[in-house]
Formats: sequence, structure tokens, C-alpha cells
Amino acid sequence: MPMAPLLPRLSQARAPLTCALTAINEHGQAVATAMPAERALTVYVDKRELVTLMTLGAHPEWLVLGYLRNQRLVDSVQDIESITVDWDVGAAAVRTRSGTAGIEARTGRRVVTTGCGQGSMFGELMDQVGELNLPPQARMTQAQLYSVVNTIRLKETTYKSAGSVHACALFSLAQDEPPLLFFVEDVGRHNAVDTIAGWAWMQADLPAGPLAFYTTGRLTSEMVIKSAQMGVALAISRSGITQMGHQVAEQVGLCAIGRATHRRFLCYSHPERLLLQPELATAPL
Amino acid sequence: MPMAPLLPRLSQARAPLTCALTAINEHGQAVATAMPAERALTVYVDKRELVTLMTLGAHPEWLVLGYLRNQRLVDSVQDIESITVDWDVGAAAVRTRSGTAGIEARTGRRVVTTGCGQGSMFGELMDQVGELNLPPQARMTQAQLYSVVNTIRLKETTYKSAGSVHACALFSLAQDEPPLLFFVEDVGRHNAVDTIAGWAWMQADLPAGPLAFYTTGRLTSEMVIKSAQMGVALAISRSGITQMGHQVAEQVGLCAIGRATHRRFLCYSHPERLLLQPELATAPL
Repeated sequence: MPMAPLLPRLSQARAPLTCALTAINEHGQAVATAMPAERALTVYVDKRELVTLMTLGAHPEWLVLGYLRNQRLVDSVQDIESITVDWDVGAAAVRTRSGTAGIEARTGRRVVTTGCGQGSMFGELMDQVGELNLPPQARMTQAQLYSVVNTIRLKETTYKSAGSVHACALFSLAQDEPPLLFFVEDVGRHNAVDTIAGWAWMQADLPAGPLAFYTTGRLTSEMVIKSAQMGVALAISRSGITQMGHQVAEQVGLCAIGRATHRRFLCYSHPERLLLQPELATAPL
Repeated sequence: MPMAPLLPRLSQARAPLTCALTAINEHGQAVATAMPAERALTVYVDKRELVTLMTLGAHPEWLVLGYLRNQRLVDSVQDIESITVDWDVGAAAVRTRSGTAGIEARTGRRVVTTGCGQGSMFGELMDQVGELNLPPQARMTQAQLYSVVNTIRLKETTYKSAGSVHACALFSLAQDEPPLLFFVEDVGRHNAVDTIAGWAWMQADLPAGPLAFYTTGRLTSEMVIKSAQMGVALAISRSGITQMGHQVAEQVGLCAIGRATHRRFLCYSHPERLLLQPELATAPL
């Protein structure tokens, strides 16, 4: 019997996600409104300062874990002993099991990326696109796509109350109505996808079968890579795609679907993964 | 008579901003669509690699100049002798007049920020918020705000043809109908505002009087700081504001206006800079 992986201990730091403010509207009236929080979280790995992330703060421990994963600064979740977030000082203390030699070697080159989000990638990342392997058999039906979009539409969100955040979510495609496995919002969409990656690393029992990644943000190269790094071969966006996002999707075999609202969508790459049911596009609701 | 500033020589590299692709829609039909370009531009300062920016590529030289300015890696436009962009190799070669000692000292600490955009700021930036001085007398009328929003609405854009880009613009408030001084789109909104900052540094004759900064993106802390660094005391967004964006705006005296579409808006900070004309909100068009 395989050993259960040794998972890191994570704190459960919490902080308010929205903040009330009074604005003046076009009629000169004072109106109560809300805005999302945006906090600085400085990450220390074995007491060495690595980076400061600006985040909403919904799940800071998973964010830090996913950041380390997606930047490929850590190879395995078992390399991390604990992550302790303290909002009083805006710090995340990461303790490793075996030191930071690997991390120091990998933080030499910086790539500052496109898009809504934390937007930093170290140079090695793009070089490794060729090594990503997505499950060749992963498929999604058009009915499942519509179900995903509808689930997101009905969700209670910080976006609905305060705006100015991006959401990412992970769905299991093992069922006809794909269950929402995880949903997160953040002020940057890269933080949101990193939080998903961190959450996924902590799950001992992710459902078998293909997954779908949903984002409100654009499918830039970095978003496509991060989806592929999680082994997720279907990415759905409310927004569009960029040329490099498209290029990476084609290369790694990812089915990228954009402009997904109500029953409309555009499939930009690897349409063989999307089982079309065009009759659903015009069927009565 | 003051000497004209010694401006850097800039190449004029150009590349296509959009790219055609065929997507599959919800009816299973192949449809022609377009996506914005997204290219890697590696910046070398005196042959030393600094950073790789992912950009649309509309004005790469101004982008690089504005990046150096907004990261406060260069104090004066006169410190730069030339910027030469070569898209064949995806490189921007910056030559300085006096070496890179200052830059090396300032790139020690990294902050990875929120939001749509290149999203990297070095640590020093936030520390300098207290030093920013905005013109105390800068004002905008509600009619001028409506004119700005309408000018943007009518503009022919990459966004309209391909989506997935952010726009930033600079307007002069010296006239009742504020003229558009500069408009730029990019795959990241931080690239867009950096390009404006670079453009502005190259202008020997910016109109006297207050300016307004427009962005399609959210007013996060970094966007507010970058507007203030250009001396622009009025920032207008189609989107909302984050808590730290609001905090910085309050602190530096910037009037932040969000949700600006048609005749609606919300003024989040320093409303004394906005001369309300509530009768315009309901006047016949």
C-alpha cells in the first residue's frame, strides 16, 4: 500500500475580503459601496525573503504553496514542512524539509508577464513547456461546458459584492454535471490560479478522471501553462485568448475555450477534446 | 534659456498587433476571429539582462523607457542614450550614459503585484509613496469626465477587433473637451501605463495644466502609484478600485473615479478635485 504523502502543516489565517467605503456618484450623492481587500504578503522561505505577493487574502497558505509550485521552486509538496501566515505583519513563513538550495538556483532569471495577476515567472518555466504531458483522453461535452458556466454564474462571490477581482475554479469532468471542486477569487488572476494549484497539492483524494479549469481572466501564455502544469487539459475563460496563450495551448495539447457566457463560446485549440452538441446551443432552456 | 533635454534615440520597431485564427463556436461552425499578439521582450541594460516583458508590442521602446521610469531604475530620461528593439530576437537593448550601478542597487527586492499587467515592482517603490506630490489645484469637471469616457468609447481599438487587451490613455484637462494626448493598449495594463510614462518622458512640450489618466483596468495600488508618479492627480477607470488602491489615492491626494461608463461613475477619493455637475447626469443627450 502506498504511503500517504506527508503534507505540510498550514496555518488558517483569515482576514476580511471586502471593505466598505462611501463614494460619490454622478448625481453628487454619497453611496455606500465595497471594494476588495488588497494586502501585501511577504513570503520567507527558511527565513530568507523570496517575494511579496499582493493578494485579496482568501487562502494565503494555498496561494504561497501554489506560487512555489507554479514557479517550480519546489518539486514536491513533501518538500514543505509548514506555511504559517500572520496578517498582523503581512508575512508567510515557509519551512522546508531540505533547505532552499534548489530555490536559490532557480530565482536567477525573471520574466514579468502579461495579464491580470501576480505576473511573475522565472525563466525556467517557459523552457519546460515541452515537458508538460496532458492526459490524451481528457474530454468535455458541450453540456458539461454549459453546466460549468452556469455553476459559476450562480455563485455568490466577492466579485458580485465588490468587483475588481478575478475568479478561478476547478471542476471534475467525471460526472455529467461537473461538480465544483474548488473556487477562489483574488485581486490578481495569477494569484487565483496559484491558490488552486496549492489547494490541489494538498488533496489526497482528487476525483479520478479529467478536470476542467475555469477563469474569468484572459487565457494568456502563463494561464495556459499553469493549467497544463496541474495536468488540466481543458481551460475555459469568460474572456479571450492571446497569441502566445494559443501557441502554448496548441503545443501542449490543451483545449482552450473562451468567450464562454450563457450558451456561447469559442473553442480556440484542440477541439477534439470538446464533444460538440450543437443542438444544445438553440434548445429551449 | 533652459537647454532642451537630451532625449534618448529610440528605434521604431513594429510588429502586427493582432493575429487571425479560426475557432469553433457553439454551433460547431468554424468562425474567423482574431487575438492580440503577446510577445516576449527581453530588456538588456548595457548588455546586462534585466527582465523579460510580455507585451502586445505596440510601442516597445516607450514601454521599456516607462518601465525603467516607473520602477525608478532610472532617475532622468537623460540617463538613457538609446533603446533599440529588435523583434527578430525579442530584445530591447538599452544603452545608458552613465552605467547601471544605480539599477543594480535597486533590483535587490521584488514585489509581485496585483492585477492585469506586468505586475512587478521593486521594493523601493512603495516606500516612496510619501514623497509623491500632486498638483493641489488640479481639477476636472463632470462634463470633462463625460467627454473623456466618450472619447474612449469612440476609439478604434485592438480591443474591439481582438479583445483581451487593456487600454490606458492620457488627456489634457486644459480644455472643456479634453484632448486625447496618447492612447495605448497592451496585453497587460501595467505595460500600458508604463508605455504612457515612457511616451510622456519623451515629450518636450506636454500641455500645461492638469492631466487625467484613463485605464480600462482596475485601480490597484500600483496603477494609482504610477498615475501619481506621472504627476497626474485624476485617474478614471471603467472598472473598480481595490482597498490598497484607495488607501494610496487618499494618501497622495489622487482623485480616483471608477465604474465610469456612459454617464455613471463613482468617485472614491478626493472628490474636491471633481467639480460635480449633477444636472448633466440626467440631461437629454
